[in-house]
Amino acid sequence: MARTEPPLRGERELLCAIGRELMQSSAAGALPFGDDMAALDPADPSLLWSTDLLSEGVDFDSGRHAWADIGWKAMAVNLSDCAAMAVRPVAALCAVCLNDRLSTEEALELLRGIVECGRAYGCPLVGGDTNSWRHPTVVCLTVAGRAEPGVALVRRSGARAGDLLYLTGRVGGSILGRHLRPQPRIDAALEIARTLRPSAMIDISDGLGIDLWHICEQSGVGAELDETLLAAAIHPDAFALSQKSGRLPQEHALEDGEDFELIVAAPRPADPELAGRLGLLPLGRIVAEPRLALRAADGTVRVIEPRGYEHFR
Amino acid sequence: MARTEPPLRGERELLCAIGRELMQSSAAGALPFGDDMAALDPADPSLLWSTDLLSEGVDFDSGRHAWADIGWKAMAVNLSDCAAMAVRPVAALCAVCLNDRLSTEEALELLRGIVECGRAYGCPLVGGDTNSWRHPTVVCLTVAGRAEPGVALVRRSGARAGDLLYLTGRVGGSILGRHLRPQPRIDAALEIARTLRPSAMIDISDGLGIDLWHICEQSGVGAELDETLLAAAIHPDAFALSQKSGRLPQEHALEDGEDFELIVAAPRPADPELAGRLGLLPLGRIVAEPRLALRAADGTVRVIEPRGYEHFR
Repeated sequence: MARTEPPLRGERELLCAIGRELMQSSAAGALPFGDDMAALDPADPSLLWSTDLLSEGVDFDSGRHAWADIGWKAMAVNLSDCAAMAVRPVAALCAVCLNDRLSTEEALELLRGIVECGRAYGCPLVGGDTNSWRHPTVVCLTVAGRAEPGVALVRRSGARAGDLLYLTGRVGGSILGRHLRPQPRIDAALEIARTLRPSAMIDISDGLGIDLWHICEQSGVGAELDETLLAAAIHPDAFALSQKSGRLPQEHALEDGEDFELIVAAPRPADPELAGRLGLLPLGRIVAEPRLALRAADGTVRVIEPRGYEHFR
Repeated sequence: MARTEPPLRGERELLCAIGRELMQSSAAGALPFGDDMAALDPADPSLLWSTDLLSEGVDFDSGRHAWADIGWKAMAVNLSDCAAMAVRPVAALCAVCLNDRLSTEEALELLRGIVECGRAYGCPLVGGDTNSWRHPTVVCLTVAGRAEPGVALVRRSGARAGDLLYLTGRVGGSILGRHLRPQPRIDAALEIARTLRPSAMIDISDGLGIDLWHICEQSGVGAELDETLLAAAIHPDAFALSQKSGRLPQEHALEDGEDFELIVAAPRPADPELAGRLGLLPLGRIVAEPRLALRAADGTVRVIEPRGYEHFR
């Protein structure tokens, strides 16, 4: 669920990894631990849920971001997990621990952002827990979602060599503004799941490269991106940001986070026009060799490092 | 859900109250906002869920409490919400924001406590979200529960004048140690719901007085405790604590929190021995007048103030 981490780089990642392992050993759910959502009830496999905690200074900065945007985002990152599994959100709970210097109006703005985003995606906020303390604010959303009849859940672990890779939209440079009001791709995900029968999906929270790598790791495969196709999937914001950052637009597309577009892996469809009709941008393919690589127009292949992104940096 | 607050005493309570109101306006659930759990899915009314956030320095003190106890408690307070509604826990999610000076071992102890408590009550931890930051640790558990076939959900709002009041166990002085490993009364709650058909239940997290008052407020009634019966429901720890605190054992019974026993309101049963067989301690009755009162052995009635308790004080 949520922000998984790049390969261990210290105490924090070690801790998260062992934590995940410990929780895995206790899980009775039908889904393996580490997907975007977990099974809620063995008696009702269509029902999933997911929790995401956002904290001041790590995931948001209330000095720079409106409380309503922070609330929207807290809900949206959970709804994006629903999109990644191709489930329709049902309802949400919210637990907050508010800094005690927040004004009533600020706290209400936060809640209004949560409620507004939930309404936009058919996910009512049905309960919660309000707390306050003298430390920075923490917002924890839990969302339940249900698979639609006849639409299979899409996991991270089903990608197979030969599958094609797509994106639901262009990526990179979201920090220029798009990251403030992410639009979870729920309708697109359900339509894709119904028609393209994807083998794996994930939403881009940490970056195209690192999130694609999560699919690879959990599927035991690798991925090869076609550089020409990738160029067509770079968001205009990545070009604009490149002017300031001095980094290549391609790097922004691969390494910027918070796009909340979906990466889709699927067997080549019988109908060659299907992906286009779904608005999907082709990106490359799944390969057997467990590595991430870029294939240039001249056919040369270069291995790339899956790099992540710190939210709201 | 969780710790509700005594009548407004300032900014914090105002904020919580308005927050609740705002959330209420958006709730599509079948249950009114403000009960121990919320309805998850209108299509499946037997399924409820609840979230509770505990924070270092407010709800626990890791300098004095073992991380495994803190984990146990984080799970137990949610399971106690299941007991209060008479539902069987199904599964849990856990989101943590760990202080970055925590050792791996401490973080694992916390998780082991959560998992251990969940196992003891048939509630596997099926997923979560791990984060770290430089501020104190926050632990947020979300638990789903399901009503058993033929066993009605018990709300806070169903108490009626004439109903009898009971406790599932003796209360007061939990701070002497019982508060570290609360034992949610799930089996007792289900048996009570099956046989006694209660009109309202709540678990004691903030104190007998204040939590009973929550039932009264949401049911539009009052309660009269029989002082003689209350005396028999005072835990030995309340007497022990009274020696140190200089307060009356009765005050500890009424005002100490974290007992996690259930307060049960039910119409007088046809079988006069039923409550006794269920291990319930009689306490008094629900009355029409919206106030909390103590009836002395001589028949005099004294109105009392519902007072709360700060957790882990």
